[in-house]
Amino acid sequence: MFTVTEARERILSHFKATLTETVPLSDAVGRILGADIHVDGDYPPFDNSAVDGFALRAEDSFAGDGERSSNTGDGERSGNTGDGERSSNTRDGERSGNTGDRKRSSNTTGGEKRKLKDIDTKGNAAGDGGLNVQLNVVVDIPAGYAPTVSLQAGQAARIMTGAQLPHGANCVIPVEETDFNNRNAGIAAPNTITFSKQMKVGENVRRRGMDIRSGDVVMKQGRTLKPQDLGLLAALGFAHVTVHRKARVALLSSGDELLEVDAPLEPGKIRDSNSYALAAAIVGAGAEVIRLGVAKDTRESVTGLLDKAAKENADLILSSAGVSVGAFDFVKEVIEANGKMDFWRVNMRPGKPLAFGLYRGIPFIGLPGNPVSAFVGFEVFVHPTLERLNGKMDGGRLQVRVRAAEEIESDGRESYLRARIHVENGIRSAFLTGHQGSGNLLSLVQADALLIIPAGVKCVPAGSEVDAILL
Amino acid sequence: MFTVTEARERILSHFKATLTETVPLSDAVGRILGADIHVDGDYPPFDNSAVDGFALRAEDSFAGDGERSSNTGDGERSGNTGDGERSSNTRDGERSGNTGDRKRSSNTTGGEKRKLKDIDTKGNAAGDGGLNVQLNVVVDIPAGYAPTVSLQAGQAARIMTGAQLPHGANCVIPVEETDFNNRNAGIAAPNTITFSKQMKVGENVRRRGMDIRSGDVVMKQGRTLKPQDLGLLAALGFAHVTVHRKARVALLSSGDELLEVDAPLEPGKIRDSNSYALAAAIVGAGAEVIRLGVAKDTRESVTGLLDKAAKENADLILSSAGVSVGAFDFVKEVIEANGKMDFWRVNMRPGKPLAFGLYRGIPFIGLPGNPVSAFVGFEVFVHPTLERLNGKMDGGRLQVRVRAAEEIESDGRESYLRARIHVENGIRSAFLTGHQGSGNLLSLVQADALLIIPAGVKCVPAGSEVDAILL
Repeated sequence: MFTVTEARERILSHFKATLTETVPLSDAVGRILGADIHVDGDYPPFDNSAVDGFALRAEDSFAGDGERSSNTGDGERSGNTGDGERSSNTRDGERSGNTGDRKRSSNTTGGEKRKLKDIDTKGNAAGDGGLNVQLNVVVDIPAGYAPTVSLQAGQAARIMTGAQLPHGANCVIPVEETDFNNRNAGIAAPNTITFSKQMKVGENVRRRGMDIRSGDVVMKQGRTLKPQDLGLLAALGFAHVTVHRKARVALLSSGDELLEVDAPLEPGKIRDSNSYALAAAIVGAGAEVIRLGVAKDTRESVTGLLDKAAKENADLILSSAGVSVGAFDFVKEVIEANGKMDFWRVNMRPGKPLAFGLYRGIPFIGLPGNPVSAFVGFEVFVHPTLERLNGKMDGGRLQVRVRAAEEIESDGRESYLRARIHVENGIRSAFLTGHQGSGNLLSLVQADALLIIPAGVKCVPAGSEVDAILL
Repeated sequence: MFTVTEARERILSHFKATLTETVPLSDAVGRILGADIHVDGDYPPFDNSAVDGFALRAEDSFAGDGERSSNTGDGERSGNTGDGERSSNTRDGERSGNTGDRKRSSNTTGGEKRKLKDIDTKGNAAGDGGLNVQLNVVVDIPAGYAPTVSLQAGQAARIMTGAQLPHGANCVIPVEETDFNNRNAGIAAPNTITFSKQMKVGENVRRRGMDIRSGDVVMKQGRTLKPQDLGLLAALGFAHVTVHRKARVALLSSGDELLEVDAPLEPGKIRDSNSYALAAAIVGAGAEVIRLGVAKDTRESVTGLLDKAAKENADLILSSAGVSVGAFDFVKEVIEANGKMDFWRVNMRPGKPLAFGLYRGIPFIGLPGNPVSAFVGFEVFVHPTLERLNGKMDGGRLQVRVRAAEEIESDGRESYLRARIHVENGIRSAFLTGHQGSGNLLSLVQADALLIIPAGVKCVPAGSEVDAILL
């Protein structure tokens, strides 16, 4: 008898990822990347403003050349006035106050005015007595338009968030830190602005390539694409992406007792529930399902359905055996006539019997017929198989640690028990949902997790932790 | 300035669940139930066998009438021989050994033979000297066929797992505990079976209605249908289910700087990434998206796109504002001309600015233009809105507690920080991914969680726990 891990490894060894295909980006969410994403071009693609404000030369915001070297040192800020600071865009350690030389010279270049007042060296911003800088606004740069001018000393450009910095500028002062705090639509730029703040080089500028450099690999083959990934791929210009083809699963049930869901009940018969649950689980695992219906308990019916599966170019034939041993054995016999078949017993509950084989060269997995056993078998064996086929490399089902709210008895087999999780104060407590009979679908529906009781464990004391698969 | 919770509550108060519609069961996975599921009929629908074996009258497996009263009492088992026990189908407390009277009478009824040997009363199963019972096999019951015979004393019926118990039978002995341990397909039933085990009433029988009683409510309105739910609904004969109509979201971006994803880059321009990320997030939240494209920064373009949205019968118009304040203000102006508009500042980062309003009677949410701010705004405000619209009652995004692997500074606003989770020994440690600038989509792509740093917290010491939204 195999352990769960042994059985899963034996199955997985028969599968490799499907070939790749190219899909439009808008269809790519949930798909598995078929190739690494190499970036061609920096991101952001150009220096741009992090705020709505005015681009300028930082050196215009403090005294003339040479002044910067007279800074008193790290961490001490003085002479900063204005409406507060954008701490998210600056780093205190990089900002130094301008102290020392109280005498400033007026410097007029290219027709703009610049007026530097004495500053308070005590380190406290003087409300109205700080450093006042006036610059000429020579251009207005909305987002989306490339500036053609080059800023000269004493010049500024109105600039919107995300807009490209003009040549010559090396920082941006936010509108609310100037005398032109006006964000209304359609308002023309002012001729001049005045402010009282010493700017540093790079302040409120998002540098070209600061996030991504041309040549970087930003996503790896095998990644499951999330909405945010599509955003990055769009930003980088990937209108199409290479993904693995979805695995194709041909699904059948078998058993004379199985009725279609819309048929009236007949004595002795039940409705085929596995094909609904398994089809949805296949799609949920990112694969395609080909629903073949229910095989009757005859060689002819089983052969007919398996041949149909073989013609569908399926990557996997998945059967839930119906509840009849006879029927199952016909599947076994038919498969052996056109391939080979292993019938395993796996040391687990529910779902001990598991069939694996090849039919006309196509891998076949036969799950038990009991609905809960079939579901657990899918989670434990088929789900990882579909991930392997789909090329998924970034991990499977989410497992969490939970605390057993009650003592749990097991029989020494690796067990998957249906439980409801109750979270309080960040602690997840697990309560078993009803009787664990393998036909009791309701207790599976009521569960939000499968507790994994390891092989060899016969008792899990209340309060101890176990792994759980969230459903 | 609103807190995140205040802003979310204000938004949610404008929405209620959509009307319902009926869909085929096979299309229902992921949809939200629009009505409670009342069951009409018991499940299982008839007493059936939990094993492949032989149905019989339990009283035929021990001495004649009156013998049962001579049991020694609870918990003591004796006289049980055969190949082990199905502990999952029996309960020790209900099983009592047959001791005391060693003399058995032979009893022949209706042509069948029954042979009762003396049993060992020491409590140990005697390998070959136990209680031997021989019964006549009078009928063969495959799964799916309703038995018409009524078992008489001394009679048995071969029965397959899931098959309906014949009248008169009250337990099933598994094939492997009889002298006819043969499961091959097509093998005829034997004329007689012999076994050495005392059966109890109900052993290996799944009783009609043991899981679900007619009239039970098995699922509640507002439940998100999972694969296993479809299984139960199929078993209960629901070929169609009533679900909430999917919310319809009209999505637009705005900004002259935005290029289509397949357009060559131009100076000053970037590609429209938000409409890809948000469209995928909308679909991931179980809603439908109507992609309207990018509005230019003009009144006419914005009006045109909003009017198109209004004609689409959307439940929500969602805009990411582009990065231009000017453009955003046109949205505001156009909305105010045909509805009303609030522009809120929410005490959070990223994503402080949030617009909410009505355009021609349709709710409008305006997210920031920065890709990370837009994404976080979607998670925090739009995702719960879509759940409300979709009628979902069973909880939102999965949150887990994680341990900060490093000291995290915050600025006192409720913050959503991109982090990667590393799990070791069941402990989830969170590491921030790169700089948290709101344009840095790569750090969002690299993250697998958003850490929630509560308002008022300026420092999370390394090793302390915070909540995280798993991405």
